[in-house]
Amino acid sequence: MSSVDVRARMNAIGVLKEKFKIILDQIQRGEKPTLVMPKRVLSNTIYDEKNKMLLLGPDVLRRSLIDVNEARKFMQTLLMASIIYEALVNNEYPTIRDLYYRGKHSIGYRDVDGKLVHENTWDEQKESDSVIRDLEVFMNVLREEMLILSKEKGKVVGNLVIKSGDDTIDLSKMGHGAYSIEPTPDLVEFKDVDAEYVLVVEKDAVFQQLHRYGFWRKYRAILVTSAGQPDRATRRFVRRLNEELKLPVYVLTDSDPYGFYIYSVFKIGSITLSYESERLATPSARFIGVSMTDVFGDEVFREVLDEVKEVGGFTKTALGKLKKKKPYLSESERRNYVIKAKQRDIERAVELVGYDVADKCVESSELRSKLKKKEGLTGYPWFRTPNWVRELCIFFKTLNKLEIEAMASKGLKFLADTYIPSKIEGGDWID
Amino acid sequence: MSSVDVRARMNAIGVLKEKFKIILDQIQRGEKPTLVMPKRVLSNTIYDEKNKMLLLGPDVLRRSLIDVNEARKFMQTLLMASIIYEALVNNEYPTIRDLYYRGKHSIGYRDVDGKLVHENTWDEQKESDSVIRDLEVFMNVLREEMLILSKEKGKVVGNLVIKSGDDTIDLSKMGHGAYSIEPTPDLVEFKDVDAEYVLVVEKDAVFQQLHRYGFWRKYRAILVTSAGQPDRATRRFVRRLNEELKLPVYVLTDSDPYGFYIYSVFKIGSITLSYESERLATPSARFIGVSMTDVFGDEVFREVLDEVKEVGGFTKTALGKLKKKKPYLSESERRNYVIKAKQRDIERAVELVGYDVADKCVESSELRSKLKKKEGLTGYPWFRTPNWVRELCIFFKTLNKLEIEAMASKGLKFLADTYIPSKIEGGDWID
Repeated sequence: MSSVDVRARMNAIGVLKEKFKIILDQIQRGEKPTLVMPKRVLSNTIYDEKNKMLLLGPDVLRRSLIDVNEARKFMQTLLMASIIYEALVNNEYPTIRDLYYRGKHSIGYRDVDGKLVHENTWDEQKESDSVIRDLEVFMNVLREEMLILSKEKGKVVGNLVIKSGDDTIDLSKMGHGAYSIEPTPDLVEFKDVDAEYVLVVEKDAVFQQLHRYGFWRKYRAILVTSAGQPDRATRRFVRRLNEELKLPVYVLTDSDPYGFYIYSVFKIGSITLSYESERLATPSARFIGVSMTDVFGDEVFREVLDEVKEVGGFTKTALGKLKKKKPYLSESERRNYVIKAKQRDIERAVELVGYDVADKCVESSELRSKLKKKEGLTGYPWFRTPNWVRELCIFFKTLNKLEIEAMASKGLKFLADTYIPSKIEGGDWID
Repeated sequence: MSSVDVRARMNAIGVLKEKFKIILDQIQRGEKPTLVMPKRVLSNTIYDEKNKMLLLGPDVLRRSLIDVNEARKFMQTLLMASIIYEALVNNEYPTIRDLYYRGKHSIGYRDVDGKLVHENTWDEQKESDSVIRDLEVFMNVLREEMLILSKEKGKVVGNLVIKSGDDTIDLSKMGHGAYSIEPTPDLVEFKDVDAEYVLVVEKDAVFQQLHRYGFWRKYRAILVTSAGQPDRATRRFVRRLNEELKLPVYVLTDSDPYGFYIYSVFKIGSITLSYESERLATPSARFIGVSMTDVFGDEVFREVLDEVKEVGGFTKTALGKLKKKKPYLSESERRNYVIKAKQRDIERAVELVGYDVADKCVESSELRSKLKKKEGLTGYPWFRTPNWVRELCIFFKTLNKLEIEAMASKGLKFLADTYIPSKIEGGDWID
């Protein structure tokens, strides 16, 4: 067992003991055992515009043993804390699925009429996962810091030397393979770096291509892939590269609402898990593409500028000030490469930017009336910027999307030596 | 660019030129340009019992330019070959998605009535992928050998030193992370190994746990995960470990028909892609668990021995000779850990072992009559063995399944130091 793991265990054990001593103290003082923790609900989630972060607000909840409505949750919380504690002292590395199984059992008791009743500690993993999240918030510790493992998809290569466990690993010496990021990225030590930026690629296959092409060597980049929707470890790893090594982070995804969302998970986090974001998000992450304007230019947007101008309180000037954009694709390339958007793409886009933008930009009246039922959606604040309104308006107007692979099919050289460098050097990203 | 890549390119270019010279020769001789290749269909797929392999049979198909029914496919094949050729000489690393985009365009021509008609080279990736498979069969070359990349989920750690690209990589020095297998595993060179076997774990999270626990160091294993359904590169990598380093391969999956199927993909391959299996499958791979008998013992099976005995031509003796098995789980552990099988688990199980076994073992008459519509399914030959009939019969009788995580929740020590070693040392696997 490596010494970093031993230290992490000791830390986590210390925090657990300290935080749950409260209960002992309460009992000794003859008080009702009660846990007080921040409320993990949307209404208590605040978007901090200045720092571009989701934070938990000031609302707290109380969980008491002596309250019929809260007793079950109270017991679940203590059960989970004790299972995690046991795992820590026994040198175990549980997963959240494990923890679910470890705690799952029936408790038999007699109800007020003396009848024997059985109740399960929890039925579904959803329930035990939610308890783990409560503990993270209550203790202000990420589950990874309690050595709870999970599957991990993220990979990295580049001029970066790290220490993980007892090994020193040179991430520029991975051959054609790559280094799989560990599930506890806070235990990684950065030893040496020679890079100018981090390029995060949504798709593993594109990562493979750029890696094989020698992109990261040529452009002194740290190349990372999240292999789709990023997991927590990949997000935390990228955040640490940004925060500790002061490397700017650029995110490359498909040109579709799903890709935009992946960027947003790296940058801001998930709105329902805001407490994670403080540690996992990279607020300064930049979206370099593939943008809708890279595919279509922005003429179609300029046509509707007058209509869109009042959306989200923008003035025509704010939107009109956007630099004109020429597409990277010719008319015929576009014809061969773009894909029709699916219903779920359109719905995701409305979620991101809000119903009002969709309503102004969608051309088909049939689709517009269909979207009427999404009227309540106001969009995420960080997508209500002139640049993103333009992007999503073009999406609504064209109802098309484009995969990064289409850019690569113009030649890997085009993607690696023209598209990405010109976007970065030209400052042509969305912040 | 690494020298192995250059060599691989030269090889692939050579094979392409040689194989397609046939067309030139045919034209020069005034013959109709025709490609002859093995038929990739189920009826031309043979299961070689002795070598435990799926092979393509002797049937061939002819694809001729001067045949209205074949002209389109003929042109697609030549188009794809030329795109791959271009990519090879231009030092590109396309993905199959790329190749789809690169070839996708409309061809305009005048039909017999002089009307201008447009036809797409291909519409969906399914179509271009099928053409790539044709080329693999026609040239007897895997797409990876033509430097066609793909996403890659497989990871490995252990006492193994490899050379990949220009780097020498010690897979015992990956810290808490792991080495991501490259998408062209044939270009990996094995330099040094100190291991007794390969343990392939279906689930990435379980791989993480065993890795962190130091399992591979303690038991001198090469630890691999396919992170779910294995991709081609992981299968080929495992096959090479087995074939070239003479290491026995053990596969650890969930105890459910899906897990059994993952094992079968490693061992035999996919019945519809039999041509790959010759290179990607590991016929000697052993299933160490989690087996149904590990969970339930085999008493429930012995109860129905008389009814099952004639299934698949087994005698009662053959089935009765199976060693008695005691479960690894107690009654109460079982109660907390097993999960109810879903409809799709049951259907997958019928696919694997055949309708007749299901019919004898399922207890509920309602379910039995529901399964009647699967009567045509005769099962895969490699699942029609006494051991697998017992496994799947127990599945049908209990309609329960179990995840590896449930085994780990008895303690990682139990999984790592008791379950896996006792299965391997005791020879308690299915071959």
